[in-house]
Amino acid sequence: MIWKRRLSKKVGVPPGTLVYTGEKEEEFELSLITYSPDSYSERNLERVEELMPFKDTQTVTWIRVVGLHRVEQIEKLGELFGIHPLTLEDILNVHQRPKIEFFEDYIFVVMRTLSYEKGMKSEQISLVLGRNFLISFQERKSDIFKPVETRLRNNKGSIRKKGADYLLYSFLDIVVDSYFVLLETLGEVIDTLEDEVLSEPYPHIVKDIHLLKRDLNYAFKVFWTTRDEMNRLLREDSSLIRKRSLIYYRDVYDHIIRVIDITETMRDTVSGLLDVYFSSVSNRMNEIMKVLTIIATVFIPLTFIAGVYGMNFKYMPELEWKYGYPAVLLFMLLIGMGLLFFFRRKRWL
Amino acid sequence: MIWKRRLSKKVGVPPGTLVYTGEKEEEFELSLITYSPDSYSERNLERVEELMPFKDTQTVTWIRVVGLHRVEQIEKLGELFGIHPLTLEDILNVHQRPKIEFFEDYIFVVMRTLSYEKGMKSEQISLVLGRNFLISFQERKSDIFKPVETRLRNNKGSIRKKGADYLLYSFLDIVVDSYFVLLETLGEVIDTLEDEVLSEPYPHIVKDIHLLKRDLNYAFKVFWTTRDEMNRLLREDSSLIRKRSLIYYRDVYDHIIRVIDITETMRDTVSGLLDVYFSSVSNRMNEIMKVLTIIATVFIPLTFIAGVYGMNFKYMPELEWKYGYPAVLLFMLLIGMGLLFFFRRKRWL
Amino acid sequence: MIWKRRLSKKVGVPPGTLVYTGEKEEEFELSLITYSPDSYSERNLERVEELMPFKDTQTVTWIRVVGLHRVEQIEKLGELFGIHPLTLEDILNVHQRPKIEFFEDYIFVVMRTLSYEKGMKSEQISLVLGRNFLISFQERKSDIFKPVETRLRNNKGSIRKKGADYLLYSFLDIVVDSYFVLLETLGEVIDTLEDEVLSEPYPHIVKDIHLLKRDLNYAFKVFWTTRDEMNRLLREDSSLIRKRSLIYYRDVYDHIIRVIDITETMRDTVSGLLDVYFSSVSNRMNEIMKVLTIIATVFIPLTFIAGVYGMNFKYMPELEWKYGYPAVLLFMLLIGMGLLFFFRRKRWL
Amino acid sequence: MIWKRRLSKKVGVPPGTLVYTGEKEEEFELSLITYSPDSYSERNLERVEELMPFKDTQTVTWIRVVGLHRVEQIEKLGELFGIHPLTLEDILNVHQRPKIEFFEDYIFVVMRTLSYEKGMKSEQISLVLGRNFLISFQERKSDIFKPVETRLRNNKGSIRKKGADYLLYSFLDIVVDSYFVLLETLGEVIDTLEDEVLSEPYPHIVKDIHLLKRDLNYAFKVFWTTRDEMNRLLREDSSLIRKRSLIYYRDVYDHIIRVIDITETMRDTVSGLLDVYFSSVSNRMNEIMKVLTIIATVFIPLTFIAGVYGMNFKYMPELEWKYGYPAVLLFMLLIGMGLLFFFRRKRWL
Amino acid sequence: MIWKRRLSKKVGVPPGTLVYTGEKEEEFELSLITYSPDSYSERNLERVEELMPFKDTQTVTWIRVVGLHRVEQIEKLGELFGIHPLTLEDILNVHQRPKIEFFEDYIFVVMRTLSYEKGMKSEQISLVLGRNFLISFQERKSDIFKPVETRLRNNKGSIRKKGADYLLYSFLDIVVDSYFVLLETLGEVIDTLEDEVLSEPYPHIVKDIHLLKRDLNYAFKVFWTTRDEMNRLLREDSSLIRKRSLIYYRDVYDHIIRVIDITETMRDTVSGLLDVYFSSVSNRMNEIMKVLTIIATVFIPLTFIAGVYGMNFKYMPELEWKYGYPAVLLFMLLIGMGLLFFFRRKRWL
Repeated sequence: MIWKRRLSKKVGVPPGTLVYTGEKEEEFELSLITYSPDSYSERNLERVEELMPFKDTQTVTWIRVVGLHRVEQIEKLGELFGIHPLTLEDILNVHQRPKIEFFEDYIFVVMRTLSYEKGMKSEQISLVLGRNFLISFQERKSDIFKPVETRLRNNKGSIRKKGADYLLYSFLDIVVDSYFVLLETLGEVIDTLEDEVLSEPYPHIVKDIHLLKRDLNYAFKVFWTTRDEMNRLLREDSSLIRKRSLIYYRDVYDHIIRVIDITETMRDTVSGLLDVYFSSVSNRMNEIMKVLTIIATVFIPLTFIAGVYGMNFKYMPELEWKYGYPAVLLFMLLIGMGLLFFFRRKRWL
Repeated sequence: MIWKRRLSKKVGVPPGTLVYTGEKEEEFELSLITYSPDSYSERNLERVEELMPFKDTQTVTWIRVVGLHRVEQIEKLGELFGIHPLTLEDILNVHQRPKIEFFEDYIFVVMRTLSYEKGMKSEQISLVLGRNFLISFQERKSDIFKPVETRLRNNKGSIRKKGADYLLYSFLDIVVDSYFVLLETLGEVIDTLEDEVLSEPYPHIVKDIHLLKRDLNYAFKVFWTTRDEMNRLLREDSSLIRKRSLIYYRDVYDHIIRVIDITETMRDTVSGLLDVYFSSVSNRMNEIMKVLTIIATVFIPLTFIAGVYGMNFKYMPELEWKYGYPAVLLFMLLIGMGLLFFFRRKRWL
Repeated sequence: MIWKRRLSKKVGVPPGTLVYTGEKEEEFELSLITYSPDSYSERNLERVEELMPFKDTQTVTWIRVVGLHRVEQIEKLGELFGIHPLTLEDILNVHQRPKIEFFEDYIFVVMRTLSYEKGMKSEQISLVLGRNFLISFQERKSDIFKPVETRLRNNKGSIRKKGADYLLYSFLDIVVDSYFVLLETLGEVIDTLEDEVLSEPYPHIVKDIHLLKRDLNYAFKVFWTTRDEMNRLLREDSSLIRKRSLIYYRDVYDHIIRVIDITETMRDTVSGLLDVYFSSVSNRMNEIMKVLTIIATVFIPLTFIAGVYGMNFKYMPELEWKYGYPAVLLFMLLIGMGLLFFFRRKRWL
Repeated sequence: MIWKRRLSKKVGVPPGTLVYTGEKEEEFELSLITYSPDSYSERNLERVEELMPFKDTQTVTWIRVVGLHRVEQIEKLGELFGIHPLTLEDILNVHQRPKIEFFEDYIFVVMRTLSYEKGMKSEQISLVLGRNFLISFQERKSDIFKPVETRLRNNKGSIRKKGADYLLYSFLDIVVDSYFVLLETLGEVIDTLEDEVLSEPYPHIVKDIHLLKRDLNYAFKVFWTTRDEMNRLLREDSSLIRKRSLIYYRDVYDHIIRVIDITETMRDTVSGLLDVYFSSVSNRMNEIMKVLTIIATVFIPLTFIAGVYGMNFKYMPELEWKYGYPAVLLFMLLIGMGLLFFFRRKRWL
Repeated sequence: MIWKRRLSKKVGVPPGTLVYTGEKEEEFELSLITYSPDSYSERNLERVEELMPFKDTQTVTWIRVVGLHRVEQIEKLGELFGIHPLTLEDILNVHQRPKIEFFEDYIFVVMRTLSYEKGMKSEQISLVLGRNFLISFQERKSDIFKPVETRLRNNKGSIRKKGADYLLYSFLDIVVDSYFVLLETLGEVIDTLEDEVLSEPYPHIVKDIHLLKRDLNYAFKVFWTTRDEMNRLLREDSSLIRKRSLIYYRDVYDHIIRVIDITETMRDTVSGLLDVYFSSVSNRMNEIMKVLTIIATVFIPLTFIAGVYGMNFKYMPELEWKYGYPAVLLFMLLIGMGLLFFFRRKRWL
């Protein structure tokens, strides 16, 4: 649950104190990719200090940090590239909302990836865009940036001809596109739930709907905040993002709006499911009740008649009649039939 | 369902990559209409290259593309008329929201047609308005633009005297007017549902209402977005749309607002239907319950009395009385009548 | 119902085509009132052409058109006074929302009158305010403008001293004031419903509430739109409305806001009625259920005891006892009393 | 009820016509207080004309009108102090929303007092702030302005050193502070309702909640409008309210916001009460149902067994057994106990 | 309850009258901390007058007031530091909403701490930031500012190098961080409630949810107002807060937004709990009802049969049959089994 995390880990600590708030992971990877329209190089580094010579090159530099528990390395990286301590704090505190902050020398972007597998999972991706470089921070290894890597390596599209701002765009684009994958998964979950609600509603479905709603709300909040921040980026006038790149950012903005649209529809659907479920359950109950009503109502008068002729009065002429017994049986049958006929006419059967 | 479509088809693909995301259709039609106040010509083309000579004429040119699966033709068209790759991508990705984008040389408009036949169906219409031409893209052949064609051909109204911006307006107008047809259909569906809810509510009506609500929400979203974009168009100052045409666009804006009004009323009505349904069902149940209550409550005491005189005690003086039996029957009758009278006075009958 | 009207009558027709969308009425009345501080004249005309000489006078001219089916007359009127075809179209298409549009030479105002008599009825009143004249269009004869007429004729108040903009204000004021009459009617309807819900809820009340809610929503939408448009009028700087008249328009604005306030309260009340109704119905059901419970629960054990002594075992000593029968009756009585006492202590009675 | 008042009293009457819409009261009081830092005088007047000499003094003048039915006196007052007819109309039409209007020579303020005693009651207080005077209009005598009077008379605080704008502030402050008294009363009503809902819910509580909700909504609307108007006053730049007085008005604004906060909490609480009530009622019903279920379910099989041994078959060996009767009784006891044990294990008891 | 406090204590009192509205506490502590990058001193004072010499020093001065009942001391403090009477009034009236007010010489900040222990508790912290000093007012002794004290005393972080505005930031930061602790507590409460709702719903849980909802709403309102005021502070251009400090305030703003996000999720969850509870309760009831239905429905026909053979007709051939009794028993068994089979096929068992 979203508040299961230790929210209060850092109360009272001086601002800018670097504490990694995610789960501890073993891996730490620092890799460096530099490229220009006609060159491309890629290497893994051990320590942040090795980055020194790449700080001021003409080529575009992408520094990729995977695993955030080696706080001192990230601190050094921050010093080397002039990143504000509060930014570093946000990078390490991996429960940020999506956001875009404009500093003098860099733009700081926080995105959240979302995946759904028996509950929503979310990871934070922090991006620092400088004049000629982009630094990406991920909590753990994942393939999400693979397509960009491949495009860079194989010089597909015009990515190598464009600057670091286009690289940043590519990352935003990939994260937002990954939301569509998430929505597909959620769509299937909802369809399954819907089928179950309509065919064979089991009691715990209310809880499942409840949890799904919460996950959808969480995702919605992430999408909405992303949209807000993208919008601000489109309006802000930063020299780090060139005018002709803006059209691409506008495209990402467009996609995130579509993501939001679909999520809203999903939320409506899931809310509606509860109505359908309750109506379905109450329909079943009503059918059961109706059968009880009818069986009970048919037999109660008959039992009464039987009771009457079970009385021990001395003078009960009917008891002496030869055909008294079959006559009573017939009478009972007629009454039973009459009641059934009455119920059918009332359309209760 | 809206998220049934493969949402994630394009994740990781470089931006501007042209992929048609709609259903494959065989047909591909490329036609060309040029007109001026006193001339009109119309022809079908095989390949985009044949458009070359019509690029810079004084007459107004309407290029109509039906069927979007021949991606390479559309790419060429884009090059010929200087359309940005991201625009082409949007034309081919037929799940766009309605939108209007202003480029230097053209305005890009996405509209969605909606039709209802056992569920909402929607198609994307993309329009590119240049200085002297308008290009329309449709997924499949339809008659929606027929009236404009006829007016052009027969020189009805002043359409031939006005420019390409008026032609664009005519298309927007026709799409928005088609929403009224849709609303009429939906209105009939709602009226039918309403009648059924009030006369003879069947259990699956909840699901039907649920689905109708979702369809209405989808339509509402399309209308609302269209309104927003129309509003932006009215404020934006583009040289491609002349001042004196703006009054026509304002008229379309007016219509879309009326569409939204009616849709909101429909949404309210459909939501209210659920209340009416639940109350209707519970009223039926209550009536059934009441009958059970009354039959059972009348007979239970009578059966008890019968039971008493069915006991086998040796000394039960009543059993010996001559008129014991009819007296008891009368007594039972009186009790039964008394109870019925009591229920009627309580207004339960 | 609001969407029962043929919404799609005009799809595909060229803009500015004049089609009257209301119900056909026989009457057509064209009357002309001119006045100045010290003069007043009034006449009925046969044809629009007779208006020619009154077009440019110093006096204020009020042209009143009642009945809109003689489209050609209205077209001529439009030509004579320089009214844009789209405005004429709106005048004839009597399902407009309230609106105020500013043209170069005139202001076009659409208002809606509302009346309630077994459902909401609404009529469109279109007003065209020019430099020195006001043209009013009504669907059918009504007394709504009578008070203004009387004031003009009898020179009551300062109406004849003020210009055409004050005349327009008088009309708006009268329409908005008529909303108070409507609200009074609705208030009575709601009070009746409320009484019925609380005293004797009948099943169809849910439908009545549902319909009333819809009507209230429709009225609310009309009021709200009127408010919006009035607000715009107050901000817009048109030479046709003089500064010192604005204070009167502000007063109308004030009234419409009060109308909205009351309507909102009514909507809340009507929504609350459903809660009260459902609770009232369920309280009745609960009372019925309680009586059943108690009768059944008291008699079921007694019947069981009677059943026991109805068994035919050979050796049942109680049956032989002299006072067995009265003892059992007493025992039954005690059990019945005990149960009743138990129920009362539980406060179920 | 808010719409019970004759809303339509004034339809069609020329604007500025003075009609008092409140209830007729006998009293009419016109009093005059003038003060400066070192002087203070107070007198009752008979007729408005006596005010003449006080119109242009250096001292601050507070004219207090109690009782609004003597329309002609108020009209004269208006003429004397240059108050616009529409303002006078609003003063007499005592169903205004709170509002602040800026005229050239004066500021017109409408406030509403609220009190709760078996339903919300509201009175209108109109205030006209001129350069050096303040006129207050009340429907009937009340003590609400007593504290200000006392402060003025006894020269407590700095009130006599400050101008008419500070006097206006004092009145606004007192009205807003009186809302806190109202909220306390309402708070007690809510607490009582809450206790009753939780301990002993009676059926009519739904109606009481319904009415309280409506009253809260009405109060909320008054508070909210007051807030809006106060906010406008803070932004508007009027020469009648000095800069250094603004801090006091900001304080009133602050208070009204706190009033709104508390009212919102109350609304939430009252809405929640309905949930609690319905759940409480349904819990009671469920308990009753459970007892019925258990009694019925325990006795129905036992009665069946008794019925079996009440059959008159010739050959029923058990009937002949010596200990048949006690054996059957024991058997019945065991079945009864078994069922009770089963229900307890299911936690139904 | 929030309105249980005497809201109306101060009605009619002149503005700026100092009345402490909190609970009376014995303690009153006045302490003084002055620091510069290389100095630090700390002392407790008895009377406000001792502060005189520290009013205009170069070092930063933090004056800490704990306990607000000694109104005259606070009044003197106000005079000494030029604090407006209305500000002092707000400091003593400890039911303020969070707010930030800009005066010429100082900024006045009201924050609220929140803690949860069987109900929400809230305390007011008032802060006055002057050119070189900060005065903090607390209702009672607490450890909330301990970490800042420690940092100052031990010269941890850069706190002593920065001015009074940074000190103010540190306090805001600590209060907002304490909200995370609160949210953790609330998270646990919600989780416990959720478990109980799903495993063993007891009737009073509705009330508990109701109260938790109210507490969440109260907290939400505090957070939201804090956010609003922080936002204003970020936009306002005050010379008392230096540009380079703003980034820290932005960080606090960021945290409060995260607090709001989590609170919203909690509110959704708690609202959802009611749905889950009602469905859970109704599922239990349904199960009980089903068992009743089945037991009753199985035995009612059997009891009828037993009743038939309990009739005393003279000529009932079956009674004479040798194997009549076992045959009837078998017949009954078959009917019982048949009914059970029927119910199982209907999936009611």
